[in-house]
Amino acid sequence: MSDDPTAAVLIIGDEILSGRTQDTNTSYIARMLGALGIDLREVRVVGDVEDEIVAALNALRSRYSYVFTTGGIGPTHDDITADAVAKAFGVGIDYHPEVLAMLGARYKPGEFNEMRKRMARIPLGAELVRNSASVAPGIHIGNVYVMAGVPAIMRAMMEDILPRLRRGRLVHCATVEAPIAEGRIAEALMKIQQDFSDLALGSYPYYREDGFGVQLVARGRDAARVEAAALAIEAMLCVQGAQPTRVKS
Amino acid sequence: MSDDPTAAVLIIGDEILSGRTQDTNTSYIARMLGALGIDLREVRVVGDVEDEIVAALNALRSRYSYVFTTGGIGPTHDDITADAVAKAFGVGIDYHPEVLAMLGARYKPGEFNEMRKRMARIPLGAELVRNSASVAPGIHIGNVYVMAGVPAIMRAMMEDILPRLRRGRLVHCATVEAPIAEGRIAEALMKIQQDFSDLALGSYPYYREDGFGVQLVARGRDAARVEAAALAIEAMLCVQGAQPTRVKS
Repeated sequence: MSDDPTAAVLIIGDEILSGRTQDTNTSYIARMLGALGIDLREVRVVGDVEDEIVAALNALRSRYSYVFTTGGIGPTHDDITADAVAKAFGVGIDYHPEVLAMLGARYKPGEFNEMRKRMARIPLGAELVRNSASVAPGIHIGNVYVMAGVPAIMRAMMEDILPRLRRGRLVHCATVEAPIAEGRIAEALMKIQQDFSDLALGSYPYYREDGFGVQLVARGRDAARVEAAALAIEAMLCVQGAQPTRVKS
Repeated sequence: MSDDPTAAVLIIGDEILSGRTQDTNTSYIARMLGALGIDLREVRVVGDVEDEIVAALNALRSRYSYVFTTGGIGPTHDDITADAVAKAFGVGIDYHPEVLAMLGARYKPGEFNEMRKRMARIPLGAELVRNSASVAPGIHIGNVYVMAGVPAIMRAMMEDILPRLRRGRLVHCATVEAPIAEGRIAEALMKIQQDFSDLALGSYPYYREDGFGVQLVARGRDAARVEAAALAIEAMLCVQGAQPTRVKS
């Protein structure tokens, strides 16, 4: 067993569960974490319901090195993430003087109303996640990072967060595709998986205008082993009569 | 409290957690369920790890009326969903004679190999989810529906599943947008939420080439109340000096 850090993502928002909004934050966060050698192990999506957020947060933060949340930190009544985070950690929440000052400087006189002041409510003991896209900060408490749901703001917050994270050994990845049904090469692929039990081999069929085929992906922390597995996959595909192509991962 | 059915989605696959594949199945399933009055309450994504699939499945199936899984039912070694489902339900798993026959008829002589036969392994007591996109079926056991991860196949399976589901009262939805910062209307919106406590009002800022603004969404099971809330939101936006536009939801 290694001590490479693990992570979970918690997406908060009725708009994802209703199908109104297509979540794209998860795949972005996954790729950013991957580049630091941090394994994303689980994702959950819950609605704007405090008890659900608290329960999911506590389940995930006890289990993984890091939890990243998106959504629910704006000025409106349905933005309840900061309160839920405070509740999950069993701490109070109050207006943060520095955030009040930052937000106060952002708005014209008379426009810094009570609802906008809500964005300065930070769980006690938390640190701020500053970002270039929004004056309102994200929140860092314990092993939890709380971000906005708007993708551009979430990404700016990730920029601030990434340098704070403990890195793991990088996960290397090689992808080989061929125009062949995955069922035809499944047995040979399983044998390669047995030879490379330190790697994860995935098989992903594709259906495109130019025909169908399969992408075979080798992932693992030893670059030489990943490359050896990719070569074994290419050789296997040739033997099976299909022309392999290395795909940029 | 009503007895409108609830649902969870469980996405199974390393490729989602690595960020390699953008999940689009969730939003499709969400919209299909919404059209039947079934509330999607939670989504989880787990990797190709049997214990994780079993634990998530058992947590979700005990809590919601229905669970829909996608991914992991193909012929390759990383397709372990059927076994995990059997384990979660504490039942055996075996080759299903009818599926063996269907699959056997699909392949040329000699091509129906052992790995392809894996797709005929069905948990004992389960029903089949037939579909127009793939001879390999999905699985229905208890309150759980097991589908393919490939979107076109998942959608074909949903076609077979939808008529089997208990319907709830439809959720109606109205969306009003205006070119105004959500922080400026947050207090007035909260008051409308208080007047319409039987509805869920959501506030979603947007940032587009033509400027920023906010979409305000009213959702609920009483169409007249949703329309009344939308009218109240439009009137409020006018009072706040912003021109409301009704958006097709």
